[in-house]
Amino acid sequence: MALTEPLVREDFVVQSSPDVSPPKWHLAHTTWFFEEFLLAKNSALYKRYNPEFGRLFNSYYKALGPHWLQSERGVLSRPTVDEVFNYRRNIDEQVLAHLEKTVWSDEMAFILELGLNHEEQHQELLLMDIKHNLAVNPIETRYSSTSLPRASTVKTEWREFAEGVYEIGDVGDDFSFDNEKPRHKNYVYPFALSSTLVTNKEYLEFVESGSYLKPELWLSLGWSWAQSTVHKHPLYWFKKDGAWFEYTLHGVEALDLEKPVVHINYFEADAFARWRKLRLPTEQELEIYLDANLSSEDSQFFHPTDAAAMRGQVWAWTKSPYVSYPGFKNFEGAAQEYNGKFMCGQFVLRGGCVATPRGHSRNSYRNFYLPEQKWMFAGIRLAKDLK
Amino acid sequence: MALTEPLVREDFVVQSSPDVSPPKWHLAHTTWFFEEFLLAKNSALYKRYNPEFGRLFNSYYKALGPHWLQSERGVLSRPTVDEVFNYRRNIDEQVLAHLEKTVWSDEMAFILELGLNHEEQHQELLLMDIKHNLAVNPIETRYSSTSLPRASTVKTEWREFAEGVYEIGDVGDDFSFDNEKPRHKNYVYPFALSSTLVTNKEYLEFVESGSYLKPELWLSLGWSWAQSTVHKHPLYWFKKDGAWFEYTLHGVEALDLEKPVVHINYFEADAFARWRKLRLPTEQELEIYLDANLSSEDSQFFHPTDAAAMRGQVWAWTKSPYVSYPGFKNFEGAAQEYNGKFMCGQFVLRGGCVATPRGHSRNSYRNFYLPEQKWMFAGIRLAKDLK
Amino acid sequence: MALTEPLVREDFVVQSSPDVSPPKWHLAHTTWFFEEFLLAKNSALYKRYNPEFGRLFNSYYKALGPHWLQSERGVLSRPTVDEVFNYRRNIDEQVLAHLEKTVWSDEMAFILELGLNHEEQHQELLLMDIKHNLAVNPIETRYSSTSLPRASTVKTEWREFAEGVYEIGDVGDDFSFDNEKPRHKNYVYPFALSSTLVTNKEYLEFVESGSYLKPELWLSLGWSWAQSTVHKHPLYWFKKDGAWFEYTLHGVEALDLEKPVVHINYFEADAFARWRKLRLPTEQELEIYLDANLSSEDSQFFHPTDAAAMRGQVWAWTKSPYVSYPGFKNFEGAAQEYNGKFMCGQFVLRGGCVATPRGHSRNSYRNFYLPEQKWMFAGIRLAKDLK
Amino acid sequence: MALTEPLVREDFVVQSSPDVSPPKWHLAHTTWFFEEFLLAKNSALYKRYNPEFGRLFNSYYKALGPHWLQSERGVLSRPTVDEVFNYRRNIDEQVLAHLEKTVWSDEMAFILELGLNHEEQHQELLLMDIKHNLAVNPIETRYSSTSLPRASTVKTEWREFAEGVYEIGDVGDDFSFDNEKPRHKNYVYPFALSSTLVTNKEYLEFVESGSYLKPELWLSLGWSWAQSTVHKHPLYWFKKDGAWFEYTLHGVEALDLEKPVVHINYFEADAFARWRKLRLPTEQELEIYLDANLSSEDSQFFHPTDAAAMRGQVWAWTKSPYVSYPGFKNFEGAAQEYNGKFMCGQFVLRGGCVATPRGHSRNSYRNFYLPEQKWMFAGIRLAKDLK
Repeated sequence: MALTEPLVREDFVVQSSPDVSPPKWHLAHTTWFFEEFLLAKNSALYKRYNPEFGRLFNSYYKALGPHWLQSERGVLSRPTVDEVFNYRRNIDEQVLAHLEKTVWSDEMAFILELGLNHEEQHQELLLMDIKHNLAVNPIETRYSSTSLPRASTVKTEWREFAEGVYEIGDVGDDFSFDNEKPRHKNYVYPFALSSTLVTNKEYLEFVESGSYLKPELWLSLGWSWAQSTVHKHPLYWFKKDGAWFEYTLHGVEALDLEKPVVHINYFEADAFARWRKLRLPTEQELEIYLDANLSSEDSQFFHPTDAAAMRGQVWAWTKSPYVSYPGFKNFEGAAQEYNGKFMCGQFVLRGGCVATPRGHSRNSYRNFYLPEQKWMFAGIRLAKDLK
Repeated sequence: MALTEPLVREDFVVQSSPDVSPPKWHLAHTTWFFEEFLLAKNSALYKRYNPEFGRLFNSYYKALGPHWLQSERGVLSRPTVDEVFNYRRNIDEQVLAHLEKTVWSDEMAFILELGLNHEEQHQELLLMDIKHNLAVNPIETRYSSTSLPRASTVKTEWREFAEGVYEIGDVGDDFSFDNEKPRHKNYVYPFALSSTLVTNKEYLEFVESGSYLKPELWLSLGWSWAQSTVHKHPLYWFKKDGAWFEYTLHGVEALDLEKPVVHINYFEADAFARWRKLRLPTEQELEIYLDANLSSEDSQFFHPTDAAAMRGQVWAWTKSPYVSYPGFKNFEGAAQEYNGKFMCGQFVLRGGCVATPRGHSRNSYRNFYLPEQKWMFAGIRLAKDLK
Repeated sequence: MALTEPLVREDFVVQSSPDVSPPKWHLAHTTWFFEEFLLAKNSALYKRYNPEFGRLFNSYYKALGPHWLQSERGVLSRPTVDEVFNYRRNIDEQVLAHLEKTVWSDEMAFILELGLNHEEQHQELLLMDIKHNLAVNPIETRYSSTSLPRASTVKTEWREFAEGVYEIGDVGDDFSFDNEKPRHKNYVYPFALSSTLVTNKEYLEFVESGSYLKPELWLSLGWSWAQSTVHKHPLYWFKKDGAWFEYTLHGVEALDLEKPVVHINYFEADAFARWRKLRLPTEQELEIYLDANLSSEDSQFFHPTDAAAMRGQVWAWTKSPYVSYPGFKNFEGAAQEYNGKFMCGQFVLRGGCVATPRGHSRNSYRNFYLPEQKWMFAGIRLAKDLK
Repeated sequence: MALTEPLVREDFVVQSSPDVSPPKWHLAHTTWFFEEFLLAKNSALYKRYNPEFGRLFNSYYKALGPHWLQSERGVLSRPTVDEVFNYRRNIDEQVLAHLEKTVWSDEMAFILELGLNHEEQHQELLLMDIKHNLAVNPIETRYSSTSLPRASTVKTEWREFAEGVYEIGDVGDDFSFDNEKPRHKNYVYPFALSSTLVTNKEYLEFVESGSYLKPELWLSLGWSWAQSTVHKHPLYWFKKDGAWFEYTLHGVEALDLEKPVVHINYFEADAFARWRKLRLPTEQELEIYLDANLSSEDSQFFHPTDAAAMRGQVWAWTKSPYVSYPGFKNFEGAAQEYNGKFMCGQFVLRGGCVATPRGHSRNSYRNFYLPEQKWMFAGIRLAKDLK
């Protein structure tokens, strides 16, 4: 709710691309998750707040019946924003009342924790989607009135890691998603990772040297994508009177060359690495790297400002397709549709970003997107093989 | 503005299909028309209210520069509804101030009159679009709280007209669009038109006898359309527990068999006529028919209720493609794009509907839509040849 | 069969666009027409040559059951070309045997005549399709080894016609299609038609003055088309080292500026006329014009060479949508699908072309195509209103 | 050439889906590979057989200039089949002449070997494509006149493998593709693989129990695919009068329940495994399995007949996305586009099939296809985890 405070009513309604959801949909969907998985599952007598909400706010759980088409979420003026606020308040109260008067089963405790983690994921999506909604509009609108600081120039070093069998995945001392489990052994060859994220300066050189027109730099599907897009640059960059600018949640700023590049897709990350005669890291390498480095501080901004940070600035694309770990089991029950069924065609990203809620990410955390998607806060940390 | 009174803020923003525009867009576009064609054309010194509004609220006037894509009007949360209200107030005041202090040229007087007629057209579109926006939403919402009356059974007669050369087109005593001119002679063969509009009862029989599955009833393109659609019935009909209902701006009602059928496309109108071994009228025949009949009263409802009315209930599809009359000239200036460039691929409808503003329609008035479009208040008046 | 003599086996099989059919398909389809409408209709005992051929070679007669998708005709290697030749021979023999031993009913006589006219239509389509198939291939292939003559410069005059009621449509002394009937009266305003077809010289000026980039010259749908196409010129023109060439059935030649322009669509014809501040004729005007002029000689070439010819060089686009005449009746029986169901979305062309078989066309003959289609031998004869 | 002996001229030309290539294209493309990579690379003076052939028969090597669109290979009637035969003969002779009179560099020897392996890959594609071309045609045509034997019932056992670090990839004693290298260590958990391929009987039970309508069995993309397809069964199965049949290169046969199921896509293989509460193997597991089992005999048929065979019947889908091995390097030169650029969005298949040329496959061989593709000879070998 706090994240939506800068919005006016109209901002809650629009959906500026099929990937984006209207802010009011996020608010209703995360509440529906508690209503459906917790209140309704808990009691056969439960009377739903509004029988249509299941259809409207179920995202993709086929076991729960038909749901509204994702790409059509922006055509719904009703329920109004106020009605969604009431819905949230009502379900929150019912959940809290339940918490007080009931002995919670393990399953209920799990759903409560899952629901909170789920809501945290949607907090990040909310910021991604608000950014997209505001950015497509020629009427310039700032989400945050704070100005972004200029970034300092950072020095790049290679952090080296030795060959061997490493343990990968959830260490088990706290909540984690099913896709992070089980912890398992992985044979890793000697590698090095850059101490810094790729900056706008580096990426601009890639752009301006005509890389989007050189097929030898691209995967086959990436080349098809690069030819089909007119925007041969990161999502929120634009050129005006010969100068580059970037739309951020803090408003438009002249492109700051020392900030990390953000909002590029897998094809672009992969082509950039090839252009540099390096490669993207695997997800195992990034997990090992994150384990070996102290956490960086959380960002105070809704935009990456520090290319030297270890984590929490931009999600780093990895070359690892999103697949199950050896011995993987889906969550039980309706939550089985949470992660496993998406293990096809996507790539893993690691490390969190400025939109990720404090405490939501962890070293074993696996984010995943399709290779053509750009609206996430995604950037590049380069890797190389060591002999 | 009065037509939008039943709406909440969220209703102003959404666009439930590419053909539909958000209500706030209609409000801004019709005001932009006055700002652009009247204030800005009138004075080179004119400073636009907001320089971005031209791009956002120009519909299709290529001579005025690039404009926002029609299908993407619903992704714009800004300007807000209140900002649009302010825009309307501001431009209205400027226009009125101008009216008082200036001697108006003929051209300006024409633009003022055209702008008012343009706004009347958008009043009808506004109702069509509000209806579509509310109807796609499973949360049932009424635009009007009035209940619709039951329709009475009407008796059908054939009104006969003699062969001869008829004068067709604008009679010239008031404003008319360029597409109604010039008045011209047309050779017409003897024909008869039904005194009543086709009713839900008649159309339901067409639906339930499997007509959407019989290729012999359809035009070739109509058959392709009929096979591709899952909704083999008028746009706002639906079946629930074996009974037919219809969504209206007055809420859902059990299908009233005596009301005129409405929200069908050209293909359906044409197939229905063929099924009845009759045909659709030409636009000339309908104009002759309207000339020969006294005007009916305006509807008090936002839905057709009287199949015996001569006009003003539903637009009647004609078999006439929308083309220019002999000697046709486009309006001059930017308004040349108003009508002429759409004379390809569309069919003419005649007679006005319940959403048409009082006084906007006339006997020579030519409405036009693509053969697959259904969201207008369009119905059927049957014709036949007389030997 | 004679028209396919220049082809090699492989040429009979390919389909270079969804509109085009493989030559062997034309050969089989026109024979199937006789088998199905004549032999099979004639006797319940008739045993079809191959039971699969109905499905494969029915074009669009829904009453005769499911048929192969038009756009997939080029995926069929079988029946082979020799098998199609055998099929033609066999059905021809059966038809001839039948002719000798039976007293023919009126219906059978009609079908025989219709089948022959149908085959003549496919002779023209065959040439259009062969041209397209050969033209898309970078391996240059000539259909005819004859060289085209250079065209002479022709002088343009305006032929004037008086206002009045004219009789339009089939005069009734020979075979005609249902769409040419009935003969009927039409009120026509005074007009003039050009004595010459638009030449490559005139059209080249239109192309090179940037007309494809000027929205004010185009219909709304035409402008969408013009923006979407990369080929902003007649279908078989191409530019090489700064010079224009044209692919013809007689091979590639340097663009001959005095030849009639050919292979343009309705949008281009309409925009050209607007650019010249003239208009396209109506189909009635062209029929009156053809009636008033002596027939020109048949072309000896498969490409238009004479801009001064009255007819038989290129089909002239008219501004008339393809609709039924007053009192129109479809052919009876299965042939009812021949013409009437296509009366939506197409425009009429008049006058025949170099690919039309001698004797197939006539003054009342109505050809029709979609406004975006270009592969016909279609060109422009300009018209203007007379006060 | 031998593989095309059963074909008639027309069969060489058609392309029954965008994935399929006309047989004459395969013949020309594999010869072009030698011409381009060997003869032309070898001598700057080399004069190409036909300068257009590079454009027509380059498949996807962007470094070699523009190439014909894959989906449009079937629109080319020229060069004719005989001309392609001549082209093959001519280039073969030039290559052999060169072999005799030149001392071959390592690079040339590599290209020669690569070209032969490339041609072997196209031998398999040729059979896949011929099958598809013949199968879509309602005129039934057999590629082979031999009849297929009935398959015997086979007994399934689980072959177990221990946990540990295994060596994976090319063992280096013969030719291999870049994607099989380098040989590298992989940590593998204990697993078991089925001794038999999934049979038609097992798959039919999956089909007939309504599995294509149960979302819980499918990946998210798989479910979208399953809803969009009307063919909810293996590619060449069809039902007639209540009985199942299968089209094979030996003609149509009643579905033989004991034969291995073939022509299913990744989504179907994955859903089948889930339905059986098992899983697909990883590519490493299948390589280990193949290493541990004696090679089976080559098939004498163009259709799988033996579910108990270890290899060479159907390619087994693995759950492994097609990615590079640690330390992977592309082939050098133009051949760098051979494999690496396709490492996105595809899944690995292992073990060879009845269409694979004798001696072409090996344990480390990685085949790969998109998850929706079905026209390969692909089937299922099930896996499970061992505690």
